Amino acid sequence: MFSPTIYCCALLFFIPALLQAAGLNQGRWIDLSHDFAADTLYWPTADKFAKSTVFAGETEKGYYYSAYNLAAAEHGGTHVDAPVHFAQDHISVDKIPLEQLIGPGIVIRVADQVGKKDKSDRNYLISIDDIKRWETRHGAIEKDTIVLFDTGSAQFWPDAEKYMGTAERGDAAVAKLSFPGLSPEAAIFLADERGVKAVGLDTPSIDYGASKLFKTHRALFKRNIPALENVANLNALPDKGFTLIALPMKIRGGSGGPTRVVAFIPQ
Amino acid sequence: MFSPTIYCCALLFFIPALLQAAGLNQGRWIDLSHDFAADTLYWPTADKFAKSTVFAGETEKGYYYSAYNLAAAEHGGTHVDAPVHFAQDHISVDKIPLEQLIGPGIVIRVADQVGKKDKSDRNYLISIDDIKRWETRHGAIEKDTIVLFDTGSAQFWPDAEKYMGTAERGDAAVAKLSFPGLSPEAAIFLADERGVKAVGLDTPSIDYGASKLFKTHRALFKRNIPALENVANLNALPDKGFTLIALPMKIRGGSGGPTRVVAFIPQ
Repeated sequence: MFSPTIYCCALLFFIPALLQAAGLNQGRWIDLSHDFAADTLYWPTADKFAKSTVFAGETEKGYYYSAYNLAAAEHGGTHVDAPVHFAQDHISVDKIPLEQLIGPGIVIRVADQVGKKDKSDRNYLISIDDIKRWETRHGAIEKDTIVLFDTGSAQFWPDAEKYMGTAERGDAAVAKLSFPGLSPEAAIFLADERGVKAVGLDTPSIDYGASKLFKTHRALFKRNIPALENVANLNALPDKGFTLIALPMKIRGGSGGPTRVVAFIPQ
Repeated sequence: MFSPTIYCCALLFFIPALLQAAGLNQGRWIDLSHDFAADTLYWPTADKFAKSTVFAGETEKGYYYSAYNLAAAEHGGTHVDAPVHFAQDHISVDKIPLEQLIGPGIVIRVADQVGKKDKSDRNYLISIDDIKRWETRHGAIEKDTIVLFDTGSAQFWPDAEKYMGTAERGDAAVAKLSFPGLSPEAAIFLADERGVKAVGLDTPSIDYGASKLFKTHRALFKRNIPALENVANLNALPDKGFTLIALPMKIRGGSGGPTRVVAFIPQ
C-alpha cells in the first residue's frame, strides 16, 4: 500500500521534527537573564550581590588560577520566587518540580499601557483585559503555559531610578518604588481560569511598585505558582511558540534564588 | 497521489515527534544537581555555602513572609568551571555560550575501575581506554557531545571522607584528597579527537584528588571546554540518548559558579 514515493515524501517531513526532538538542534537559544555583578538591582532593603577575589593570577606552580566568593540576597537580579516566600509550609525553591519551570511560554506585551496618564508613574497594574487582548490575537492560553509579561522595563536596567523608581537604599526607599506589576485579579484569572504553571516579568516584583500587601504574590503562592522576576530580553521572543526553561540555584529551604532563564525558539 | 489512508498513517507517525519538538512533552526530566545547604561539599580551602535568615514568619501586616541571604565560594556543590578558572583571558562563566552547555549527552561508567588495587585509594584516572570501551558498545562519540563520567562517587555524598578522602578543612587537608578524575590524556583525546563541547563528573574536581598541577583543568580550559563537577544522579541516565542542559548562575567575570544540571530523556 505504501509506494516508495509516498514513503519518501512522508520521511522528508518527518526528519526535521525527529532531529529537533532528539537534540534541540533546529532553533535558537535566547538568554533571558541579567548577569550578577555589583550593579545588579536588588530590593532597597536587600543585600546586593558581592563577588570577592580569593585568587586571580599566576600561581607559584607556574599556571594561572582565578576563583571568587559570592554573597547576595536570594531575591535580586534574574530570580524566581518560590511559594514559601509568601505562603507558610508551601514549597521552597529546591522543591519546585523541574516541569513547572520548563514548558511552552508566551509573552504578553503591556509596555504601551505603562505611564499613560503620568509618565513618571510606572505603577501600572496588568489587568485581565491585557491578557484577553493577547487571547483575541492568539487564542485562549493553554493549560500549563508559562506566561511572561513584557512591561518595557528591561530597557532601563541597571538604572535603579528608571527601572524601579528609586536608587535609594534602605527602609525609607520602599515607599518610593514605582514599576509595573501583575494585578491580583489577573494572577487569579491565570491560575484558576487558565491553569498556567508559572508567571514572570521584567520588573523587580510580580506585585507592582506601589504594593503594600503583596496580594499577587500571596494569590500565586497559595496556589503553588512560582514567579520569575527581573527577566531580561523579552523583546527577543515571539508572542508564542517557544519553550521556556528556568533553572534556579537549588537552595535547600530557599524562598527563591538566582535563576538562569532561557528560551528555545524552534526554527 | 496521496490516498486518505496513507495520509493518516503518515500523520500518526508525525504527531508525537512534532509534539515533542514543540514542548518537550514526551519524556522525563532528571535533576542532576545536589542541593545547596550547610552540608554541601566544598574544597577544603574554600568557603562553604551559608544561608542566613533575613525574615521568616508572620509579618505585622498579617501574612507569612520568608527570605534568606546566601554566601559561598563559586566552586562547590554542583557547579561549572569556566575556562578562566585556569586559563588567563579565557571566557568567564557568564560568557560560556548557552549552546556549549546544552546538547546531546552521554555517560561513561568507570565505577568498577576505582579502587581495584587498594580500596582506600580512590585516585583513579579515567583513561582513553575507558572512553574507547564505551565507543566499542555505542559507536564513536559524536562532535559536540557533552560527556559525563559516572565514577560511582555520588553514592557517598555528602560524606566528605568517603566522597573526597577527607572531611578535614584548610590547607593541610588538600594533600589528603582522594577521588577519581579525568586523565589529561583522556581530556585532550575528547577535545582534539572527538570535538566534545563540555565534560562533567560526579567528583569535586575534573582532575583526580591526588593532582598537584591540575593538568586536566589546564588542558580543557586552554581549549575553552568547561567542566561540570559534583554532578548528581548519573545512574538515573542511560549511556546515551538524552539532552543535557546545564545552566550556571550568570556571574559577571566569574571563574565558575552554582549550576543547575538537568537531563531530558525522550520517551
